[in-house]
Amino acid sequence: MAQTVEALAEPGRRTRAARSARREGGAKPAGVPYIRRNIPTYDILSEENLLKIEAIADRILAEVGIEFRDDLAALDLWKRAGARVDGVRVTFEPGMLREIVSSAPAQFTQYARNPLHNVEIGGSNVVFSPAYGSPFVMDLDKGRRYGTIEDFRNFIKLAQASPWLHHSGGTICEPVDVPVNKRHLDMVYSHIKYSDRPFMGSVTAEERAEDSIEMARILFGADFIDRHCVILGNVNVNSPLVWDGTMTKSLRAYARANQAAVIVPFILGGAMGPVTNAGAIAQSFAETIAGCALTQLERKGAPVIFGNFLSSMSLRSGSPTFGTPEPAIGSMVVGQLARRLRLPLRCAGNFSNSKLPDGQAMQEGLMSMLSAIHCGANFILHSAGFLDGLLSMSYEKFVMDADLCGALHSYLAGVVVDDNTLAMDAFLQVGPGSHFLGCDHTMRNYQTAFWDSTLSDNEPFEKWSEEGGSTDIATRANRQWKKTLAEYEAPPLDPAVDEALAAYVDGKKKAMPDAWY
Amino acid sequence: MAQTVEALAEPGRRTRAARSARREGGAKPAGVPYIRRNIPTYDILSEENLLKIEAIADRILAEVGIEFRDDLAALDLWKRAGARVDGVRVTFEPGMLREIVSSAPAQFTQYARNPLHNVEIGGSNVVFSPAYGSPFVMDLDKGRRYGTIEDFRNFIKLAQASPWLHHSGGTICEPVDVPVNKRHLDMVYSHIKYSDRPFMGSVTAEERAEDSIEMARILFGADFIDRHCVILGNVNVNSPLVWDGTMTKSLRAYARANQAAVIVPFILGGAMGPVTNAGAIAQSFAETIAGCALTQLERKGAPVIFGNFLSSMSLRSGSPTFGTPEPAIGSMVVGQLARRLRLPLRCAGNFSNSKLPDGQAMQEGLMSMLSAIHCGANFILHSAGFLDGLLSMSYEKFVMDADLCGALHSYLAGVVVDDNTLAMDAFLQVGPGSHFLGCDHTMRNYQTAFWDSTLSDNEPFEKWSEEGGSTDIATRANRQWKKTLAEYEAPPLDPAVDEALAAYVDGKKKAMPDAWY
Repeated sequence: MAQTVEALAEPGRRTRAARSARREGGAKPAGVPYIRRNIPTYDILSEENLLKIEAIADRILAEVGIEFRDDLAALDLWKRAGARVDGVRVTFEPGMLREIVSSAPAQFTQYARNPLHNVEIGGSNVVFSPAYGSPFVMDLDKGRRYGTIEDFRNFIKLAQASPWLHHSGGTICEPVDVPVNKRHLDMVYSHIKYSDRPFMGSVTAEERAEDSIEMARILFGADFIDRHCVILGNVNVNSPLVWDGTMTKSLRAYARANQAAVIVPFILGGAMGPVTNAGAIAQSFAETIAGCALTQLERKGAPVIFGNFLSSMSLRSGSPTFGTPEPAIGSMVVGQLARRLRLPLRCAGNFSNSKLPDGQAMQEGLMSMLSAIHCGANFILHSAGFLDGLLSMSYEKFVMDADLCGALHSYLAGVVVDDNTLAMDAFLQVGPGSHFLGCDHTMRNYQTAFWDSTLSDNEPFEKWSEEGGSTDIATRANRQWKKTLAEYEAPPLDPAVDEALAAYVDGKKKAMPDAWY
Repeated sequence: MAQTVEALAEPGRRTRAARSARREGGAKPAGVPYIRRNIPTYDILSEENLLKIEAIADRILAEVGIEFRDDLAALDLWKRAGARVDGVRVTFEPGMLREIVSSAPAQFTQYARNPLHNVEIGGSNVVFSPAYGSPFVMDLDKGRRYGTIEDFRNFIKLAQASPWLHHSGGTICEPVDVPVNKRHLDMVYSHIKYSDRPFMGSVTAEERAEDSIEMARILFGADFIDRHCVILGNVNVNSPLVWDGTMTKSLRAYARANQAAVIVPFILGGAMGPVTNAGAIAQSFAETIAGCALTQLERKGAPVIFGNFLSSMSLRSGSPTFGTPEPAIGSMVVGQLARRLRLPLRCAGNFSNSKLPDGQAMQEGLMSMLSAIHCGANFILHSAGFLDGLLSMSYEKFVMDADLCGALHSYLAGVVVDDNTLAMDAFLQVGPGSHFLGCDHTMRNYQTAFWDSTLSDNEPFEKWSEEGGSTDIATRANRQWKKTLAEYEAPPLDPAVDEALAAYVDGKKKAMPDAWY
């Protein structure tokens, strides 16, 4: 019943083909499973300063420690690994956690039900995944309201339709019309049904993590997933320096099944961590490495992603701020630290506190998103849709961000230097005072030379105002997401698999009373 | 009559004070004359690939050459310097231009009439200057129309009022209500009258360049400006590979007076240069180094800025596109090449082809602006106001961009690593599961920790919609520029200097009939 994806899986095949097509002057591919960066990471701190931050992280772990609450099995794992456990407080000798996480893979494949959409996570690879976790959705027609399972499916469809997103994501929005204790079943089923890209499961309770993984077993086969990563679980630290049992139990469930946990402290500087970047980064490092290490104690060699979420605060209102310069620049340092551990990195994303898909939204989003690109993030959660400071998924911003992800494909391709791109033949052909519009070199390269947005307006003013209706990009995005949803076609799914999944969901739902909070 | 600025001039004094104030937890300063970057440049190409690009530039210069039209004196300078001159075509032996430009300073001070606003151009310094050259202006109330001298003055006032712009700019918009042959007089006078920051003069004819410099002599004294840079002239190459006499004569006028020319090829890939980045960069390098060298032949040691303007094209419409990934990433390479010449760099800016201050405008603007930051640009022209693909200055975008320039001050400050920022005392005080809101470390640092935009909305959704009127950032910017103009106060100007300048302008205007094209 499980699809035989292993035989077809060949990571990077499609990317190589895509690059080759571009090099040879062919059209851009309809979709690529992930990107390999052709630009270096942006390393902003010196070795000396990195060592200082690591030393503070070591002191935090040794002198202050981390609390692991409501998870006796986790405390037991720490004891057996040689950490000092005092009640729920665990402290660690310097170097101990580095040693433990060294068994985690530097890079791994997350398999998709369509093997052409397998992604490589780690190394020089970059994977764009939609935003995650908003209770609200918004669009220009209906404004802001609670998300529903229909919204959830819509965003899966929009992601699936985009050539520039590589991943279906996880809790794209909360489907609040489904009982809390049953949402995960409908969410995982929707990812599988409406997308053939890789996806994320639930972490909000151990049994929901187990259900997510079990549904992955139905899709891929139990043997296959015991040996290959097919589902991610995004687990949060309760910063500062607390791991709640809900999260560590889910983290361990994923690791036990050889699936990848994404370990993410959310540090709002001045609240859940120091107000200064260097200290917040040290804390984040300490919290993340402890989570990564716990996955290895649960199952040595399980894939894990070193995650991170730095944020800042408005002095005037005390509100969290997003897409601001301090977290953006701090992310470069987090990237440097993750690479020293040889772990795949999740960092930054497309964040904004704007309530509309306006100039603030795109400026804040891009500042944060480019920091993810520059810091070397391998898995970029929150690549599309995020508005309202984590609280809303915007339909318009989703397609605007997906278009931006397309631009970032060209950005990550860097500056290629070879005989063709150096264009000496063009200079000899054209000479001074002429133009390159029809020369051989231009004809050979123009189709693949420049990123061409489907949402940006590049017409002359008169054409924009007379024929284009003087639209802003949000209005054009509003039209685009509706058109995309209208034209969406579901990727084929083996009916037997579909039936088995539906039966699993039904059975689980019937066995539980509805819980609404 | 000229102000005795030399005695007061002490470059960097205000910046050091500002940094010190921040370090000591004081409030942010009202304004800083320029920024010193505390982050490295983002060097994306290997030595090997840089050498390949330089080698193609050498071949372009030796095998194709550059035409210098309508400027016999320039051709004569080239002949005497040992270049091969064939009609108007000049070719150069490899290495010759590098040798000539080595006499230009790697860094210089541009003096302002208020010495607290002197800027350092070159090295690790960054100077933000408004956009330049649009025939149109636009705002949300009146839409797009031709610029007037009143608009011109308004933008000077907005720049002068911003703590985040360091420079008054040049032709901020074309004042089309003033005859073409007299505009430069009103523009230079307005910069001096309404701003006390450094500014740029005219280049559209040799006598207009001379007038601009003569007015600077009235302000600063002839002796002073013969020894110090007080005015910049932005000269464009007529790409590909043509220097027009209008430009070289102005360039030489600035150099002759020991003032700084900014040498800028404008290459729209596929039209004025190859459609591939590497070739366009090589061409740009060849055109710029030739212009820089000509300043040194005119006056050895004159300050000059290595400039650059890469652009791309829409496949669908053939229109130029701005703020796209290819020029952004190409700028990093231009930065690397300029640093190998040890010349101050002007690169990228805040570009967009949007016709509104919307999400497209800010996304494109920031992609381009961050490339200027990362590539190491020292003088960032077009930092504020640019919309409509070079054609319009937007009042709203101007203040949105100025606010963004403020954010970039925090970005350029990087991640400071010292005992205070590492915050070990905070971890020991707070411990796991608590919060940092009132701890000593937060109280000591919160006022200077995070960039606080005056335009971004960071309120909770309910407050934004109920009390804030559900505004987008463009609407808030519309209110802000009007308030700023209403509250503007002109910086004091010595009445004798003012009178002498006005008399010079009047005398020149009376001696010419109006020319409207």
